[in-house]
Order: sequence, then structure tokens, then C-alpha cells
Amino acid sequence: MPVAVSATLAANEALARKRGAGEPVLPMAFGEAGLPVHPELRAALTDGSEYGGYGPVAGSSRLRDAAAGYWERRGLPTDLELVVAGPGSKPLLYSLLLGIGGDVAMASPSWVSYAAQTQLAGREPVFVPTPPTQGGVPEPDLLAQAVREARGRGRSVRAVIVTQPDNPTGTLATRDTIQRLAEVARELDLVVISDEIYRDLVHDPTVSVTSPAEFAPERTVISTGLSKNLALGGWRLGIVRLPDSPLGQRLHAELVGVASEIWSSPAGPIQHAAAYALDEPRELVDHIHRSRRLHGIVAHAVADRFAAAGVLAVPPQGAFYLYPDFAGWRDQLAGNHGVATGADLAAFLLENFGLGVLPASEFGEGTEALRVRASVSLLYGDTEAQRYAALAAEDPLALPWVRQHLDRLTEVLAMAGRGCAVTC
Amino acid sequence: MPVAVSATLAANEALARKRGAGEPVLPMAFGEAGLPVHPELRAALTDGSEYGGYGPVAGSSRLRDAAAGYWERRGLPTDLELVVAGPGSKPLLYSLLLGIGGDVAMASPSWVSYAAQTQLAGREPVFVPTPPTQGGVPEPDLLAQAVREARGRGRSVRAVIVTQPDNPTGTLATRDTIQRLAEVARELDLVVISDEIYRDLVHDPTVSVTSPAEFAPERTVISTGLSKNLALGGWRLGIVRLPDSPLGQRLHAELVGVASEIWSSPAGPIQHAAAYALDEPRELVDHIHRSRRLHGIVAHAVADRFAAAGVLAVPPQGAFYLYPDFAGWRDQLAGNHGVATGADLAAFLLENFGLGVLPASEFGEGTEALRVRASVSLLYGDTEAQRYAALAAEDPLALPWVRQHLDRLTEVLAMAGRGCAVTC
Repeated sequence: MPVAVSATLAANEALARKRGAGEPVLPMAFGEAGLPVHPELRAALTDGSEYGGYGPVAGSSRLRDAAAGYWERRGLPTDLELVVAGPGSKPLLYSLLLGIGGDVAMASPSWVSYAAQTQLAGREPVFVPTPPTQGGVPEPDLLAQAVREARGRGRSVRAVIVTQPDNPTGTLATRDTIQRLAEVARELDLVVISDEIYRDLVHDPTVSVTSPAEFAPERTVISTGLSKNLALGGWRLGIVRLPDSPLGQRLHAELVGVASEIWSSPAGPIQHAAAYALDEPRELVDHIHRSRRLHGIVAHAVADRFAAAGVLAVPPQGAFYLYPDFAGWRDQLAGNHGVATGADLAAFLLENFGLGVLPASEFGEGTEALRVRASVSLLYGDTEAQRYAALAAEDPLALPWVRQHLDRLTEVLAMAGRGCAVTC
Repeated sequence: MPVAVSATLAANEALARKRGAGEPVLPMAFGEAGLPVHPELRAALTDGSEYGGYGPVAGSSRLRDAAAGYWERRGLPTDLELVVAGPGSKPLLYSLLLGIGGDVAMASPSWVSYAAQTQLAGREPVFVPTPPTQGGVPEPDLLAQAVREARGRGRSVRAVIVTQPDNPTGTLATRDTIQRLAEVARELDLVVISDEIYRDLVHDPTVSVTSPAEFAPERTVISTGLSKNLALGGWRLGIVRLPDSPLGQRLHAELVGVASEIWSSPAGPIQHAAAYALDEPRELVDHIHRSRRLHGIVAHAVADRFAAAGVLAVPPQGAFYLYPDFAGWRDQLAGNHGVATGADLAAFLLENFGLGVLPASEFGEGTEALRVRASVSLLYGDTEAQRYAALAAEDPLALPWVRQHLDRLTEVLAMAGRGCAVTC
């Protein structure tokens, strides 16, 4: 599991080195929202600074009540006794996997940590392809087939993970796919873990996410957090909503038991600020609205630049990622640069052009896939003032620093495509 | 592992119920420092509220540098590249155990989570008795014998955990014992995990803790945090210092790898405040000095009350615990109340007298042991004003609310001892 760390770290370190040497860089490897902390959130943290004592393992009832309200406003009635908060959704997910205690089906590609955590918990990931243009959701028929095949080999597959909108592809499954996924999960008695951490970052405000909890409420665990919509990855606050069923009660007991031994509780002051955020006051709703608009505009502009260079990506619908496919360049990459794998491609783009991306193999795809995840959120500016300006701009693409990044991307793709590499 | 949670939770819930019903309670079950957050720490947290982005997995270099300085001032030169911070020392310890990957020797009694975490990591705890009056350290000869015996059974024992000062006994090992422990660890090739989270709470300021790192620097991992000395359990910040050796390098890589998959990093604003704390500014040093003086005075007074009732405890030397032994009452407890085990005893004291303590069985001792851990730190006051007054008092025992708690303890022990229980 240290591999995933190393790929991101290696990219960050190489980018820092190039930046230090005055070379141009395009930092698109790291999945960080890249936006400032809202001032009212900072004030809420200050208000919470008195909370020095140990609190309840699952989080304060104030926080869990706010989380229940958040889900209720999305059509998902929630009992606060079935909400558990933790220092990020990562530890919650890991502890769930420990509690569930079986192999885990997931999409190929899918977020790096699902497979790594499954292995850390002593289990095996079962990778399942996704429907075309609907990343994050294992194709339901292929899921059924893969689970039956694994069970035939004596493996105990007990859960499936779904991500909407998806990391790494930025796409969104249809309501029909989610319904079929839920049916298959029920048929095969799988717990559905629905990672909805990007839910509020669907670009089109008229499009909403369908949770598997709508179709299989008795078996769906939803996880989310503040890291993406409020750009608070560094504050470490995640929450899960367990199903209101005997299964949910059991998972709750197991999760709280594991949580009490691994991390005790989320940090008190952070919980206080998170409760304020999950109440969704007007100023934060506006902030998130501006964020998702910005993510969408830049992600589409970046997709256009890739497409213009002959590198296609499924149009992103949410989050701040896209997943371009360099398959059309395969021959010239191999012939001119000895680039045969996704990892070769990422290294080639990083070393020669300072373009940081992560190869498909980091997301559970085969080494030969020439796809990469490009994150657009670190292109909004290098200073807090620039990022605020990007959030506020009617047309963020007109801002000089954003345009420069996009033009540099076009330039890099042109150079990489015509094979001049280092010597250009 | 949910058992340990349940014991504390059950005690807390029963105490809350009794409090709600207007009955007198003595909350001595929970290991919380029970003191207010220093105002300068709150200010430092506010200063850190801008840190919303993901930071380095091991913690910021500012924080790791402050931690290195903390250890250097205690005679332990420290490379900041070998410091890892996490959301509490618990997740760091768990991840170390996962990385070390073998059974773990520990003292009987010892802190509840060592054994629980070992089991969660799929390994077995090997309990070893401690030298008389020196809790927290497995008796070195018995350790060697137990490890050889376990290895003879085909078990792979790879680490030993040491706690100084100790939870649950509040005692401190001698320098000689630590030296012998370190020698045995080297002889048997064991990693030594030295939990020094109570190091700054030795009651006598002229007595200092000997770390196994002084004798076996190549194999000793030291862990600590802000939860106890600064009463910041709810802020969740722990740090470990890995040995400067090939082993230390390997453990560092494994720990950071696991950390990156389970929790990413400690919360940014908390890291900022922790760096301020680990720099040990004068105002915090004074605060800790007053805290440890208060813990010592009250712990000794509580020990005296137990002793006066014929219940002996080894005199505590650090932290805010004592570990009284009701063995002298065994016959009358069994005859009058059907109390045969430590768990019976804790339930008897809780249900009949509102005295919350944890039985020895929670700390890895046999069920028949009539010892309990009594934590004194929630006797300092029910309000922040009372706790500040206790910290400032020349003679905290003269404060009416502290005296009332002590007198209530004497009364409870008299009632419990003469067998009148509920009907008194």
C-alpha cells in the first residue's frame, strides 16, 4: 500500500524541484480542492477551541444531528444514532471494512485507497469495470458475475463500493444504473458503501446524485466529509450514515468499537466547526455553489484542451477530475519515447514537461492503460487572493493565471504529441 | 475489543443517570485529565485555522521540528525525519503494530487499548507481570521467559510495550529495571514501544523518567501526545519518535504508508497549536507544572482515604491514577454481597454508591483480581472555574468541592466495607 503514497509524493516532490529551478509546472496530480477556508468556518473553529476533553466516540450529538439534517435535506431521513463521525472518511471506511470482514468489490478504475485499505484489512479487492461514461459504479451484471466467480473460488465477498460523482473520472452514474446496482447488491447480500464525498460538487446544479440508499436502504452505508466541498482536507472530518436495519445496528457497534481503539473520536474543535458547516448556512451554500461552478468551468476547459490534442476524456460531470485516454498516441509514444505503460506516460509528462498526473494503474487499472487522472483544482491560483478571485469571477477562464495554465497545457500536449520531449 | 469501550461507557452512563436523579457520584472511571484548555493554546488553534489543505502525512515539518526539540530537551537527540504525528497516539500505535506484524508483549496490568489493538491487528497479546511497585514494565526475566515460551509454541513475538509513568497503576519503573528491560529486548530482538504520554506528569519534579531509548536507542519507539499533560484528549494529537537505525527507517516507511491509507494526516489547525505547545513556552510549562502538582496532591490524598479503609494501593508517582487492591475485603465482599470478581466489585461500587472505577480485568488481569483503577482527575471540580481554582490553589485539598469528594469517598468505602450497601 505505500505505492499509492509514493506516486503522489514523487509527483509532488518532482514538481517542487522544478518549481524551485524556475521551470514551469502544471500540478494536476493531487486531489485537493485547492480553495481557501471560508472565514465563517475559521470563526466556528475558534468557537470550538474550548473542547479539550474526550467526547463521544461517534462524535457529539450536536454534530450527528447536523449530519442527519444534511442528509434529510437530500431526501434521506437519518437517525442521528446511526451517524458516526471520524477524523476523515478514510478511517471510517477502513474500520467499516474491518467490521464487514470480507473481500470488497469496487470499480476499475476507482480511488486508490479502496483497494489499499481492503488489503490492509487482510482482504482482497475485486475489480469490476464500469458502464461506459459512468465511472465509480461497478457495472451491475459484471459485478454479479465477478462476485459469483470469487465466491466460487471460496472467497467471501461482502461489500461493494460505489463513488458518485467519481474519482478519478469525474463522471456520474445514471439513476437506472444505481437501481440495478442496488438490486444486484440485495440479490448477492452485499453491503453497499456509497462514497458521496463529491455529492455537492456536481457541476450542473439541476442534476442530483442518486444514492443507492434510495433503492437498498437496509444495506447502504453513505460516507461523506468536508474535504472536497469545503476544501477542508486538512481538517480531517468525515461522517457515515449507517442503514436503519439490523445490519446497520451491527455495523454501528463494530464501527464504534474499532473507532474507540484506533482514534477515539474526531477532534473536538473540528467537530464544532463541522456541525456549523453541516447546518448549511447560506454563506457556505453560496461558497460551495461558487466552488462547483468553478470546478466545472475549468474541468470542461481542460477537457477541451486535451481533446484538441487528440486525447479524449469522458466529459466530467462532477468533482475536479478528468481521466483522459492517450490510447490514440500509443504508437508514437512507444516509438519516440519508449512509453508503453500508464506509469511511463505519467513519468514522461512529469520529467519532461512538469505536468503532474497519476496513471490509471494507481486506480486499479492494468499497467498498459494509457489513461491518467488529471486534477484541475490546483490551477485556480498560487495565492489565496488568486483563488478568491477565481471563485468570484464570472468568467474564471479570463483570469490571466488560469489562462496561462491552460495555454501551458496546450503547449505541453503539443510538445509531447510531436515527440520533441526534452530537446524542444 | 468493544468490551473495553462498554465498561467505560457503562460507567459513564450509570453515573449520568445517577447524577440526573440527584444522587451523589464519584466519577473515577475515566482517564481524562479534567483540566481546562490553556487560553494560549486556544489562540494558537485560531492562528492555525487557515490550514485547510492536506499536509504531509507525517505532520508539518514545523510540528516535527518542535517535537524533536521537545525530546532533545529530555536528553534524546531527535531527527525530525524520524518523527511522525497522528490524530492521537492511538492510531500511531495501532499502525506501528500493523507494521511490526507480530505478537506483542505487555505488562499485566496495562492500558486497555494495547491488547485490544494487538487483537485488532490480528496478533496476540503476551501478558507479563510487572516488578512490585513498578507498573507498566514487564518484569525483564519474566518477559524473556514468556517470549521464549511463546516462540516455542511457534508464535512470532516482535515487540514489547512499556508505559512510564504507568496507566493504570500510576507507578514508575526504576532506571535499573528499564536498563534490564532494554537488554532483554536486544537479546530477544524485540522492538520496544515506550509509551511516555504521562512523562511530564511525574508528581515529584526532581524525579525524571528513564526512557528505554537511553539503553536500546536502535530499537526503541517513543510515543507521546498532548492529551494528558495539557488535558487535550479531545484535540487528538499524538507523536512518535522512531529509532535512528535501519529498523527505524523501515518502521517509518511502514507507519507513513499505513497512516496515508487510514488517516492521511493530523488536522492542520491542531498541528499548528501542537507545534506551539511542543516548543514549551513558559506559560505552558507553568500550566503543566501546576497540573502535575495537583494530580499528585489529590492522588496521594485519595490513596490515603483508601488505605484508611483497609484498601491498599502502591503510592502513585505519576499521572492521575491509582490502583487500589480490595484483596483484604475478599471474604466480606463475597459473603455479604456476592462479589467475587473485579467486575462484580466495580458494578457493586457503581450501582450502590455511584463510585465509578474500572476493574483489573479491563487491564489484562485475571477476573478474580479485586483491584480497580481509580482516576482522580475528575474530582477537581464540576465547572471550569472550580478547575482553575484547583490548579491555582496552594492547598487544593482545602477547597470545599475537593474535600467533599474525598469525604464522600471515605463514606462510600465505610458503607461498602461494613456491608450495608443499598439499604444504608
